[in-house]
Amino acid sequence: MNAPLTPAELPVVAQRPVPPAFLDALQARFGAQCSTAMAVREQHGRDESVFVHVPPPAAVVFAHNTQDVADAVALCQTHQVPVIPFGVGSSLEGHLLATQGGISLDVSRMDKVLSIEPENLIARVQPGVTRKALNEALRGEGLFFPIDPGADASLGGMAATRASGTNAVRYGTMRDNVLALEVVTAAGKVMRTGTAARKSSAGYDLTRLMVGSEGTLGVITEVTVKLYPLPEAVMAAVCSFPSVEAAVRTTIQIIQLGVPIARCELLDGNTVRMVNRYAKLQLPESAMLLMEFHGSPSGVAEQIETVKALATEWGGADFSWADTPEERSRLWTARHNAYFAGLQARPGCRAISTDTCVPISQLAECVTHTVAEADAAGVQYFLVGHVGDGNFHMGYLMDPNDAAERELIEKLNASVVERALSLGGTCTGEHGIGLHKRGFLHREAGDDAIEAMRAIKQALDPQGILNPGKIF
Amino acid sequence: MNAPLTPAELPVVAQRPVPPAFLDALQARFGAQCSTAMAVREQHGRDESVFVHVPPPAAVVFAHNTQDVADAVALCQTHQVPVIPFGVGSSLEGHLLATQGGISLDVSRMDKVLSIEPENLIARVQPGVTRKALNEALRGEGLFFPIDPGADASLGGMAATRASGTNAVRYGTMRDNVLALEVVTAAGKVMRTGTAARKSSAGYDLTRLMVGSEGTLGVITEVTVKLYPLPEAVMAAVCSFPSVEAAVRTTIQIIQLGVPIARCELLDGNTVRMVNRYAKLQLPESAMLLMEFHGSPSGVAEQIETVKALATEWGGADFSWADTPEERSRLWTARHNAYFAGLQARPGCRAISTDTCVPISQLAECVTHTVAEADAAGVQYFLVGHVGDGNFHMGYLMDPNDAAERELIEKLNASVVERALSLGGTCTGEHGIGLHKRGFLHREAGDDAIEAMRAIKQALDPQGILNPGKIF
Repeated sequence: MNAPLTPAELPVVAQRPVPPAFLDALQARFGAQCSTAMAVREQHGRDESVFVHVPPPAAVVFAHNTQDVADAVALCQTHQVPVIPFGVGSSLEGHLLATQGGISLDVSRMDKVLSIEPENLIARVQPGVTRKALNEALRGEGLFFPIDPGADASLGGMAATRASGTNAVRYGTMRDNVLALEVVTAAGKVMRTGTAARKSSAGYDLTRLMVGSEGTLGVITEVTVKLYPLPEAVMAAVCSFPSVEAAVRTTIQIIQLGVPIARCELLDGNTVRMVNRYAKLQLPESAMLLMEFHGSPSGVAEQIETVKALATEWGGADFSWADTPEERSRLWTARHNAYFAGLQARPGCRAISTDTCVPISQLAECVTHTVAEADAAGVQYFLVGHVGDGNFHMGYLMDPNDAAERELIEKLNASVVERALSLGGTCTGEHGIGLHKRGFLHREAGDDAIEAMRAIKQALDPQGILNPGKIF
Repeated sequence: MNAPLTPAELPVVAQRPVPPAFLDALQARFGAQCSTAMAVREQHGRDESVFVHVPPPAAVVFAHNTQDVADAVALCQTHQVPVIPFGVGSSLEGHLLATQGGISLDVSRMDKVLSIEPENLIARVQPGVTRKALNEALRGEGLFFPIDPGADASLGGMAATRASGTNAVRYGTMRDNVLALEVVTAAGKVMRTGTAARKSSAGYDLTRLMVGSEGTLGVITEVTVKLYPLPEAVMAAVCSFPSVEAAVRTTIQIIQLGVPIARCELLDGNTVRMVNRYAKLQLPESAMLLMEFHGSPSGVAEQIETVKALATEWGGADFSWADTPEERSRLWTARHNAYFAGLQARPGCRAISTDTCVPISQLAECVTHTVAEADAAGVQYFLVGHVGDGNFHMGYLMDPNDAAERELIEKLNASVVERALSLGGTCTGEHGIGLHKRGFLHREAGDDAIEAMRAIKQALDPQGILNPGKIF
């Protein structure tokens, strides 16, 4: 029997000094592409996490191409200075914070779609291309890129955190949709992993090792992703339920029956209320599933018929349907605004978001216990979930300067993780470990797996310059 | 410009001496589970590859459980003796050969299905369970495990080589279908990777690193795989084409249109002839696609209608259909017998099988050039392909003792790989690197990726005892 899981730790800030010779060399190589202005540094030294008290990086380098990245990393290697890749700053787990000092390497200007190959259903992009920009570039090709983590994240960042979000229930996560990478190694070399072929058994799967490595094994400078033909028919639906449990039970049956649903998202009644206020909507303020169905017209009709029958059995009512892009966007407003609606419900607050993912049959137990515990503690939260994957987020709202509130919420957070692990799940479905879940990862993976991960880190980044202090 | 790819090398045999103290310790620990009988050793020192002149391992240990594996590996570690995991021996790439000596660790008696969780669509199995045995155990559950590499391979071996085969075009490969593993490390520790959740961002993806590592990073002792609901309707179809190119062009369009075809397999006319003779069938002896469609009855009907229209445009004719399990098995006989029908077409021969996989749009060019080259060289071959993935196999038939013939065929083999790489593909879609494709891997992956792979190998197996000499 394990000891109870301790709440997620605060990051230890131990910034290594940055040698003046290093900053000189950086300025000499990058000129105006390198900034030491405090405002720029501060903007790169935070993210959407609760960690707000870490000093910013010593400088920010704006890379324009792979050679810039390689040169910046090589300089960091020479001077043993940490380097933290930066996309759009939408991390929720403190990935971007300079807890050990060093520089931020901003790749957001590497924003070119390098090639689109409709005949092979792939695109090659620079890491700063966001998911919306890629889909914009695909307009007129009859293709789309499905991974949608909510934020308009960069594809480099999404690969680095193994992101997923809505659509993953049908199309998989970044793990499944990245075919190949270009990566700058800790030594500043430019390495290619994978090929444009759909499958391969050629040696160790370096692509999958880099996906989810959170900038600790290399800096991603190019991503080759899978694309999908736009479905012939798309129907979005919203359905209200008498309880969170009823919505989750419906989801479990949808998955167990193998319905190829494209999106299946949960909001609890409280969150719908926040979203109504934030986005001026009039949705029924009870637990809700937001769904989307892709396929041929008859295939979509079949899926809908099955799902309607299941939902009705669990008390689902007030179905709304949308089949034009405009109406679908309106329905999806609720989901995409949930995070910011939650933050706005309490001015000045930050959210600590859980990210557990459990085997689908355990989801109802995991969610209902979690909600009951939060309600009993009297904390404010929003609840959303990619429930088709068994993944949900409790967004506990807290004043980042209130230590007592934080302690209470971190205890709740640890309790959710404990529950998810005991049910065969994981502490993070899609946000990554970053700073906040390092203790949780250790519990989940165990000593031997952590030892293997550390050995790999040591092998590929012996000086520990690549985003140090994250994951472990 | 790279220098021309050299033909695949013969394995260098440099067997390390096995200390007598080690064999004594092995006998003391394993008793009757350890055999040094020459017949047993010889049976474990070969596989389906062309390599027939390597001396067998010094002993064979039959593991019954994870502890046996851990103890055997720990003894090997102590005495610095190579250990080669063995499932059913169906490798095509020399994975099982004791080129550096050591012992074979046979896990085929670890053949228990540990749990089936229909409610989570997963099964947990020991590594010696074969794919057919798993599907037998699933009978009555309404579920199936789709990965079908042809041979009734063990799931441990399939995970170790990142296998796929028919069905991968719809259901993915072992990369996509292994959720979690138990692995014995080089130090003899029992490590768990992954969880039963469908997705996770928890640290480095050790599961995907182990899948495809060919026994060089750990010994797989348990595999958790995804299962799928049996489709409501299944229809198999055979269609003949005037040429290999016409069959491949039809396939390319099927994939580009996003038809969710479950199987799409090519045989050339020559191979159909071999299969007719071997399995006493009367199939039309021209290029042929074997297809399977899964879905709802109306969904399957829609897919068939689309595919028929595409096939007809390319001259497809003689459609045969099968919707009962018996009839489907009869149709699939052709595909499943192709390998042995090929071998039997020339008594005493071995086959050198290519395994290239290219982006789908390049498949016609890759296949037609390959066939033309083989025909011009006057060699005997069979041609089969998981063409929906862009993956095909030329099985060149050769007398393993005829050096000149071997040289000619290895040149053809290298030429196919060169072509596939220049078209953006990989040297191996599903067989792995083993002994035979080490030079090809180096060309494909490049120096930096090879260096990263070697660093990982060194980190996780510093003494080099785990299946040494394979992959690199």
